[in-house]
Amino acid sequence: MESPVLRKSDLHASVSDPVLDTMNFLNEVTHRYPDAISFAPGRPYDGFFDSEQIFTQIRRYLDHLVEQGASAQDIRTAMYQYGPTAGQIREIIADSLRADEDIDVPAESIVVTVGAQEAMLLVLRALVAGPDDVFLVASPCYVGITGAARLLDIRVRAVEEREDGFSCADLERAILDERELGRRPRAFYVVPDHSNPSGTTMDRQTRADLLELAARHDILIVEDSPYRRVSPGSPLPTLKSLDRERRVVHLGSFSKTIFPGARVGFAVADQRVVDDSGRTTLLADELAKIKSMVTVNTSSLGQAAVAGALLASRGRISELNTRAAAYYGDALKATLRNLDAQLPAGRRAELGVRWNEPTGGFFLTVHVPFRADNAALTRSAQEFGVIWTPMSYFYPEGGGHNVIRLSTSYLTPTEIEQGVARFARFVESESAAS
Amino acid sequence: MESPVLRKSDLHASVSDPVLDTMNFLNEVTHRYPDAISFAPGRPYDGFFDSEQIFTQIRRYLDHLVEQGASAQDIRTAMYQYGPTAGQIREIIADSLRADEDIDVPAESIVVTVGAQEAMLLVLRALVAGPDDVFLVASPCYVGITGAARLLDIRVRAVEEREDGFSCADLERAILDERELGRRPRAFYVVPDHSNPSGTTMDRQTRADLLELAARHDILIVEDSPYRRVSPGSPLPTLKSLDRERRVVHLGSFSKTIFPGARVGFAVADQRVVDDSGRTTLLADELAKIKSMVTVNTSSLGQAAVAGALLASRGRISELNTRAAAYYGDALKATLRNLDAQLPAGRRAELGVRWNEPTGGFFLTVHVPFRADNAALTRSAQEFGVIWTPMSYFYPEGGGHNVIRLSTSYLTPTEIEQGVARFARFVESESAAS
Repeated sequence: MESPVLRKSDLHASVSDPVLDTMNFLNEVTHRYPDAISFAPGRPYDGFFDSEQIFTQIRRYLDHLVEQGASAQDIRTAMYQYGPTAGQIREIIADSLRADEDIDVPAESIVVTVGAQEAMLLVLRALVAGPDDVFLVASPCYVGITGAARLLDIRVRAVEEREDGFSCADLERAILDERELGRRPRAFYVVPDHSNPSGTTMDRQTRADLLELAARHDILIVEDSPYRRVSPGSPLPTLKSLDRERRVVHLGSFSKTIFPGARVGFAVADQRVVDDSGRTTLLADELAKIKSMVTVNTSSLGQAAVAGALLASRGRISELNTRAAAYYGDALKATLRNLDAQLPAGRRAELGVRWNEPTGGFFLTVHVPFRADNAALTRSAQEFGVIWTPMSYFYPEGGGHNVIRLSTSYLTPTEIEQGVARFARFVESESAAS
Repeated sequence: MESPVLRKSDLHASVSDPVLDTMNFLNEVTHRYPDAISFAPGRPYDGFFDSEQIFTQIRRYLDHLVEQGASAQDIRTAMYQYGPTAGQIREIIADSLRADEDIDVPAESIVVTVGAQEAMLLVLRALVAGPDDVFLVASPCYVGITGAARLLDIRVRAVEEREDGFSCADLERAILDERELGRRPRAFYVVPDHSNPSGTTMDRQTRADLLELAARHDILIVEDSPYRRVSPGSPLPTLKSLDRERRVVHLGSFSKTIFPGARVGFAVADQRVVDDSGRTTLLADELAKIKSMVTVNTSSLGQAAVAGALLASRGRISELNTRAAAYYGDALKATLRNLDAQLPAGRRAELGVRWNEPTGGFFLTVHVPFRADNAALTRSAQEFGVIWTPMSYFYPEGGGHNVIRLSTSYLTPTEIEQGVARFARFVESESAAS
């Protein structure tokens, strides 16, 4: 009997999402041109990793359990059994947040998740109850949050960044506009430090203004900040550390600071939730309920590896990443220096090319005088041997057609030098043709 | 400033699900009566686990990669970086399915997931596209599938098992009825072997009939079978191994066979999907797209531990679990033997008590002549020192009020003997009072 065939149009719309197709396209281009230098992947540089570190990290966590008085049976339970849905290393994460981020929250307000991605899904699901609710995002926007929203059929409203970053006035207009439309804005998602994809950082005054705005309009802020501790210098305070009235849900990731394969992230959700009978829980408790239906709990192996790394540095992720932060900072500086050498100020003014100059993170953005689409990307890979990401992928409501994201985290200095030279030739060629 | 408070009624309905509250209640009872013997948790016995096995399992996987020609850099990438969304141990799982289950599928049709729970979420999300789609489940039903459906606002239709198990005629009636209501039944979820919660096993003829029925009505079957390889004797063939036309999506879990803390499960989804332009993918490809928005990829540490265990037994989970299967089989037999001794045939006929006699798995069900609700559970824990699960938790559309689930997997022989004696006293007392 002939096998039946499912029609893709009969599946949920999230599998037909254009962003997934474009990401697939990017992967295909990368695969098709293996000799091209790629400024596309936003992954950490893996030259720092040592094959043995997983063993020492897990061992260190087990030793810690023993020091805490755990029996052999306790350790078997901790490592092998189903674990607490909200996570088994919450105290260690809470300690780290106090040591490094001036975020002082009880362990009970933390939910350990399978990367920050699962945390996004949980927060979206908890806060958006029905079709009249809307979730606001800074745009251009990390695809993980808009993807998770699509999966849950959640309405997203983009608040577009200006070239110098996000503006509170724009957010306020969006909130008022959504209310006008009869909808309830629930929360605003933003990456305040060295944003993915644009590379912008929110200044201190805007952070304060944003908190004030959130209070005034009674919305939550979802702060996602995976690049703070892999950037050189001292970062500005997190929104959460400035948060005096539990307006901020803070999402954390250990993918850049420890390693992605552990798949460990977390949400800090210390908001109080009251039910009709007056019983109070924390938002973290509600997120854990949802998590029980998504992944049950986070792998104890991943949690052990992360805990082992945190314990080794007394919770100071900043110290753990001194070398990595310097490396990434140098990569970014080298990219900017090479761009300036290849396309000096006069020349880029003629062409209509400009870029921002982030002081940290993995990304910078380049404005170009031509359409930076998949066709341009293919020409870039094929004729110039250089790959990048079209920024249009990151605009939930369209836009960014003349902007390119360069990711600098995964390349060696030599690759950066050669890659930028190739990129400049590509930009010259496209500009001439347009 | 006073912190704002979220109203629970403003959060998504999935956090207010009564099943979660009852599960919490069960946890509280367990916590409140620590000396009670608990027939509640469906978790594997952990006396088999050895603290060092995670290290040897991961090491074995790394050695395997080296044998396959992996460089030090390849290993760093495999263990530390973001991995392939669909998983890095698909070949090893495919080999295991061939060795143990007579399921012969290409590795590309497998998606490795964070436990079978994530696989359920992915399958539900992919198959249910809109409000007119409906997902059918055998009832009483594992709470993981109904919970994930609730999270996604997916309509579920329960097909209630009879006392001797599931009937195809009942499923067919439900399909026709849903069509009558203008809805599109997409798939039917069932645990054919030693079901959680009822302990029933689908006979061979019903398996064949179910496949025929699925073909006739053009629906998929979602087969979830975590208890096959932790049961004594030879199981019946999986639905997937009997599936000649790719009607079955098979969900796998290593939580019972290897260990829960790894959080590794998988879906076999070899169904072909065709888009409007005629391009064909596998359902597994579509599930992976959704997974990229849920957890990005499954922890490489968990995958490595599972792969190491599979490699050590040449993929034969059956051999890996010979001792565990015998242990669980003995626990079940001891429970049945003790029940029969405490409540002999004549006595239980007088009381109106009866139970089924599963040959494997973790669960059996006891019909009682009184309401087996949370109040009865509290009395049972407090006055008789024995805990169990009300079957009513597992009926998506209500029911099961006079049925109790006993889980036998987590107890020692002594606990079983004492626990059943206490349980019998509780049953006698409640029956007398009712």
